[in-house]
Amino acid sequence: RALSTVARSKLRVGLIPGDGIGAEVIPAARRAIEALGSDIPKTEFVDLEAGFELFARSGDALPEETVEALGECDCALFGAVSSPIKKITGYSSPIVALRKKLDLYANVRPVVSVAAKGAEDTKPVDLVVVRENTECLYVKQESQTTSERGKEARAIRLITEYASQRIGKMAFELALGRPRQVFTIIHKSNVLSVTDGLFRESVRSVPRLVENGRYDNVKIEEQIVDSAVYRLFREPQIYDVMVAPNLYGDIISDAAAALVGSLGLVPSINAGDNFVMGEPVHGSAPDIAGQGIANPLASIRSAALMLRHLGYTSGADRLERAVNEVLYEAQVLTPDMGGKSKTQDVLDEVIRRL
Amino acid sequence: RALSTVARSKLRVGLIPGDGIGAEVIPAARRAIEALGSDIPKTEFVDLEAGFELFARSGDALPEETVEALGECDCALFGAVSSPIKKITGYSSPIVALRKKLDLYANVRPVVSVAAKGAEDTKPVDLVVVRENTECLYVKQESQTTSERGKEARAIRLITEYASQRIGKMAFELALGRPRQVFTIIHKSNVLSVTDGLFRESVRSVPRLVENGRYDNVKIEEQIVDSAVYRLFREPQIYDVMVAPNLYGDIISDAAAALVGSLGLVPSINAGDNFVMGEPVHGSAPDIAGQGIANPLASIRSAALMLRHLGYTSGADRLERAVNEVLYEAQVLTPDMGGKSKTQDVLDEVIRRL
Ligand SMILES: CC(C)[C@H](C(=O)O)[C@@H](O)C(=O)O
Ligand SMILES: CC(C)[C@H](C(=O)O)[C@@H](O)C(=O)O
Repeated sequence: RALSTVARSKLRVGLIPGDGIGAEVIPAARRAIEALGSDIPKTEFVDLEAGFELFARSGDALPEETVEALGECDCALFGAVSSPIKKITGYSSPIVALRKKLDLYANVRPVVSVAAKGAEDTKPVDLVVVRENTECLYVKQESQTTSERGKEARAIRLITEYASQRIGKMAFELALGRPRQVFTIIHKSNVLSVTDGLFRESVRSVPRLVENGRYDNVKIEEQIVDSAVYRLFREPQIYDVMVAPNLYGDIISDAAAALVGSLGLVPSINAGDNFVMGEPVHGSAPDIAGQGIANPLASIRSAALMLRHLGYTSGADRLERAVNEVLYEAQVLTPDMGGKSKTQDVLDEVIRRL
Repeated sequence: RALSTVARSKLRVGLIPGDGIGAEVIPAARRAIEALGSDIPKTEFVDLEAGFELFARSGDALPEETVEALGECDCALFGAVSSPIKKITGYSSPIVALRKKLDLYANVRPVVSVAAKGAEDTKPVDLVVVRENTECLYVKQESQTTSERGKEARAIRLITEYASQRIGKMAFELALGRPRQVFTIIHKSNVLSVTDGLFRESVRSVPRLVENGRYDNVKIEEQIVDSAVYRLFREPQIYDVMVAPNLYGDIISDAAAALVGSLGLVPSINAGDNFVMGEPVHGSAPDIAGQGIANPLASIRSAALMLRHLGYTSGADRLERAVNEVLYEAQVLTPDMGGKSKTQDVLDEVIRRL
């Protein structure tokens, strides 16, 4: 489902490093894209601001200019945001807001293990989490009252047929491009029979809504979220495409990331019908920010996913192959992978192998 | 926090096998308790019914007689329920209902790895998940409407100060009895600032509500749920006591179970101020039900936890030591553990080692 096959003479990429190591990995991804040369159109990068650090400076975590400027871009790369744990008046996560404002309804997170040369991959992982990105508890409709017993807080969990069907469609399309074509719906409808029941049924209804039995070869399965996490640890190879409501998808993609060695390896795109934004799954990692040791591979892979989504397959292939070679050789790795190299060294190594 | 130190001349234990392998593991736990002899008072067992199989037969998943009979018991053991994935009119999970009806507000799930003789335990796990058991999305207040775009479903997630404080208190008390006294609050207050914000603050307020700096040595930490699951896989040894709202606790305890070899090993109690109910964390496992190969260890450990909670420490210790010996020797194990033994063999081996 490439966003558009219209030939572009120029590609405008918004860059939002955000907080912490975002400022280290997003420039690295930019350099990797630039190194692709003629595989993609002439690229123009637009530096944009968002994040908690910006909020602390300016009182605005997601300036209107950033959102407007994205409207002029073909795609974007987002780094990470530091999330304050305490409620801070006026602050709200810019990534959650961007996903909604740009209607980037699918968060696609491929998790693939690449065994290093000579090492055995006892539990190979090759799956993609397709996370609904606009609703569930992320609608953030919360309220607080007081009863005789003290404070009471409520949050709304919203699941719609519309959003569940479109994420389902995206996931079925992804399944078609994969060798195994196994499709697992993640839910908790044994407890949440109405909301997760609707998610499950809506996703299941998708094959009936498309023509010509397009998804007839896709094997549809389902798993309750808690046992899905259990089985993910025990036998990750059973999973191929996992489609999940927002919060379960959030948790499951982190769980899957743990299986492949580092969160620093796992990329994602936030995709809508009109825009795509690459985003490493890792966070802002304040503990290592500014040291030049952040793993750039998740961001470079996110750039590849973004380009693939736009239809630039050969550029995406080259980036992904180069990253996989670096992992296979296992010589130039950042500390999160047990290596001693710097962000810059890993980037250079990827570019050398392009 | 033993429920009562009043000497009982007789111990009445309700037995609710429920569905599937519940009918195999609960009788095994009963036999293990009986084998304790004089370490506990004379025990009387009361056979009670609940579950989906019962619902299919009778239209009632949790008969009023069962709830009433439990009122006459000192404690109970619950097996498992088969949860239909589709909404079935009139059916609602009896375990979720029992937890609420008996106000069993804490679901305490210790997860401990026992290395087999000669095998190295590279990632030793010794943690306890303290899961709030009465609210969060489990209040099951769901509704469905229709908009121009199709069906819309909503669920309420309820978090109260009262319930969060009492689960926090239970967790702090448990921490006091553990060597490391590390206490990690699990939440997602970076997104759910009101509900998870209230959970987090209420739990944190507990030390201020008790006298004499009782919890002064407990080290309080916190983790966002998605990264908690990630770190659980990567470095489980950082965790000791994990306290979580209902749904996160559900997922995290399954994740932790995956680290120790089998869900068939992980016990729990559902504890309130007036009643305690042991329950293996595993489900009804319809795929292996009726074959006599279900792992009875989680149920036997649940019986031990239940007895410990009632103040019968020496009986609990003996059961737990016997189970740990069976795991250490690794000669008599059910297929989920890679063994070839039957439920009955494992039970006999536990009893032999009491
Ligand atoms: C930072 C946070 C709001 C975000 C989320 O929960 O979606 C993050 O965990 C992610 O997975 O992208
Ligand atoms: C069967 C189901 C309702 C239950 C739950 O979600 O609490 C189970 O997963 C558990 O962990 O005890």
